[in-house]
Amino acid sequence: MRLWGRLLRLHEAIGRTIDNLRISLEVVEEDLWRCRGLIVAEDVYAVNDMPPYDRSTVDGYAVRAEDTYGASPYNPIRLKIIGTIYPWDEPSKIGTLGSGEAVEIHTGAPMPRGANAVIMYEDVSVSNGFIEVYRPVSPWENVSKKGEDYRRGEVIVKRGTILRPWHLALIASQGMSKAKVYRRLRIGIVSVGSELIKPGSAAGKGRAFTYASTEYLVKAMLEEQGFIEAKYYGIVADDYKTLESITETMAKENDLMITIAGTSVSKIDIVPKLVEDIGKWIVRGLAIRPGRTTSMGIVYDKPLFLVSGNIVAAWAALESYIIPSIYMALGLKPPSRPSVDAILLRRVANPVGFRSFVRVRIIRRDGELYAEPYALRGSNIYSSLVKTHGYIVIEEDREGIEEGERVRVYLHNPI
Amino acid sequence: MRLWGRLLRLHEAIGRTIDNLRISLEVVEEDLWRCRGLIVAEDVYAVNDMPPYDRSTVDGYAVRAEDTYGASPYNPIRLKIIGTIYPWDEPSKIGTLGSGEAVEIHTGAPMPRGANAVIMYEDVSVSNGFIEVYRPVSPWENVSKKGEDYRRGEVIVKRGTILRPWHLALIASQGMSKAKVYRRLRIGIVSVGSELIKPGSAAGKGRAFTYASTEYLVKAMLEEQGFIEAKYYGIVADDYKTLESITETMAKENDLMITIAGTSVSKIDIVPKLVEDIGKWIVRGLAIRPGRTTSMGIVYDKPLFLVSGNIVAAWAALESYIIPSIYMALGLKPPSRPSVDAILLRRVANPVGFRSFVRVRIIRRDGELYAEPYALRGSNIYSSLVKTHGYIVIEEDREGIEEGERVRVYLHNPI
Repeated sequence: MRLWGRLLRLHEAIGRTIDNLRISLEVVEEDLWRCRGLIVAEDVYAVNDMPPYDRSTVDGYAVRAEDTYGASPYNPIRLKIIGTIYPWDEPSKIGTLGSGEAVEIHTGAPMPRGANAVIMYEDVSVSNGFIEVYRPVSPWENVSKKGEDYRRGEVIVKRGTILRPWHLALIASQGMSKAKVYRRLRIGIVSVGSELIKPGSAAGKGRAFTYASTEYLVKAMLEEQGFIEAKYYGIVADDYKTLESITETMAKENDLMITIAGTSVSKIDIVPKLVEDIGKWIVRGLAIRPGRTTSMGIVYDKPLFLVSGNIVAAWAALESYIIPSIYMALGLKPPSRPSVDAILLRRVANPVGFRSFVRVRIIRRDGELYAEPYALRGSNIYSSLVKTHGYIVIEEDREGIEEGERVRVYLHNPI
Repeated sequence: MRLWGRLLRLHEAIGRTIDNLRISLEVVEEDLWRCRGLIVAEDVYAVNDMPPYDRSTVDGYAVRAEDTYGASPYNPIRLKIIGTIYPWDEPSKIGTLGSGEAVEIHTGAPMPRGANAVIMYEDVSVSNGFIEVYRPVSPWENVSKKGEDYRRGEVIVKRGTILRPWHLALIASQGMSKAKVYRRLRIGIVSVGSELIKPGSAAGKGRAFTYASTEYLVKAMLEEQGFIEAKYYGIVADDYKTLESITETMAKENDLMITIAGTSVSKIDIVPKLVEDIGKWIVRGLAIRPGRTTSMGIVYDKPLFLVSGNIVAAWAALESYIIPSIYMALGLKPPSRPSVDAILLRRVANPVGFRSFVRVRIIRRDGELYAEPYALRGSNIYSSLVKTHGYIVIEEDREGIEEGERVRVYLHNPI
């Protein structure tokens, strides 16, 4: 029985998927305190020079640099203190600093006119209204110049940036307390299968069953991307009409959908039947291992990803295909995992044409890192994600990776 | 003026800090759907073998492996189909599989008695109630054995694990819908300084001012750790009594506290005065660059971190000291950033005794990665976090890193 056509290679599948993931997210103005992890919808411009004026970067004394030339512990130079300037003072508080004069200045305070350097508290001693300077300072030493960080009118955060902590602080530093961001991408998730029961519920008598668990992985992997909100629609038994009606609801309420399990070609797999009846395939089967039943179609005008109910197959599909496709469709760079280089301890084989994701444990020995492929290779082995440190990728054109080869390990658990 | 004693080196500061971060978090039973990123409070045990019975990992036909020996496209072997078994069926549905017989079986379904392998749909053809087998299968091929993943009574998730997507799925696969986790660590944050005003509010007349912005960085960096909830208590002008009262409130409502700005030694820095008056220092000044004013004390019996109001100094303190200390005090491994190796394009100097965090841009040239130190080195330069890709670390015993040396770059923005 020939059940699958040629499986698509990953890069080809991602290309087709991006072309068909037409996502349109509304722009909302959100309080900056709630913007972490969201995507900026419009370029953000600087409204002020940053810093807004020349200012001191340390606590000390504002001076004319030339006055300090030649200063040393053996030849201290005396300057008269003519006042103090605080971060909230206008520079005009002090007139113009003359030769032989110094102004006490605090971190962040504006430089008084005439001064062009700050000497730190540590480099002077104070007595009777004078400082004694023990070392020379260069012009503009310990001074942050007006506009050196950002100029008024400059783009400070580009459209399409995922807001990390430093972006939020930068926007706030310009006096803005809100940002225009895209609302979160909504993803609906449903599990399919008569054998599935909800964790925490009692098992039926006289039937084998499986607790629905892959849905927890799928929802959490999606929501680790801050700009996604995922909603779980529960379990549909292998009942075509119910699946149809829940899918229609999901399509209305979400930007895209994911079905878990029922992806294969057996008679009881109703999700493919739904796609064939009322939608169309974009990707039917993917040349990755595990995860080859991973597919993508359009149903009720919305993108629908089909992932296996097997935990490792679902993981590989999300990690290598679905999450990168979503990022790229939104014009974002896919996330990168921490990684280490290690020496492979045992050969791993690869069927040519497939891209394999092999979970490994990292072992430290004599200051060198080794990667040991996890012994249980099945696509439904929870321990292969939980008891390993990361995974290696074998490209489509390779028959395997030899023992002793150096590999890059992408980490998912701390070593 | 000698204002600082010997600054503590980072590893020493972390050691002292951990000894004094006595955090006691209550254990709560939380719905598994809300456990992402939280810390498990008790070892979780398997209540069932996983898989609970021998089961098929593919769609196909359960057979006796011995019956298929010698099968090939030129010499197919015929087996009689005696029934079908679904994932929800008990294995007893089919009696015992005899020689020359096959049972159609779906992914996840229990193996019928007598069968010891599954042959995939792709490797057979079907006609008139028989399959023709074109290749032999080995005993236990395409079968996941009872208990091979986890054995009943085994610890599946250890106390102290941060719950990632695969841990949630594993717990759910055992039928549990809740987990015992620690409640989130509560951190109170307050900004200190008369020059600060809230973003979005109007600037006062006749005063220089700075929009409070580092607080956005601090809160977001903390909350990127899923097990932390941070509360911002606003801005305290340089008023000692108000600071005292807000600190007392924060100490009551939180596990630890952070003050932003006012960390230094100048007369207007009231936070150090508060620590000296009613608390004690654990770390007073830290040998990191930027961030040397970073300090930690105990006030109202609660840990208090003092970070600079300068964005880069605050970032370095959180990245290298505060966040790792919190992880270690909770018995967790500190988080690791993605990193790449690159060749340094320009020498960077380091004052011996300090650990420096130098922000760099990554440049790709002829397939090689180069790291270019960011030109503006001040500790209040927002662009040095926003326009760079990552940072390099210079250890305390080095005077710098030479041009052309290979360095590890820890990434904070996508390349």
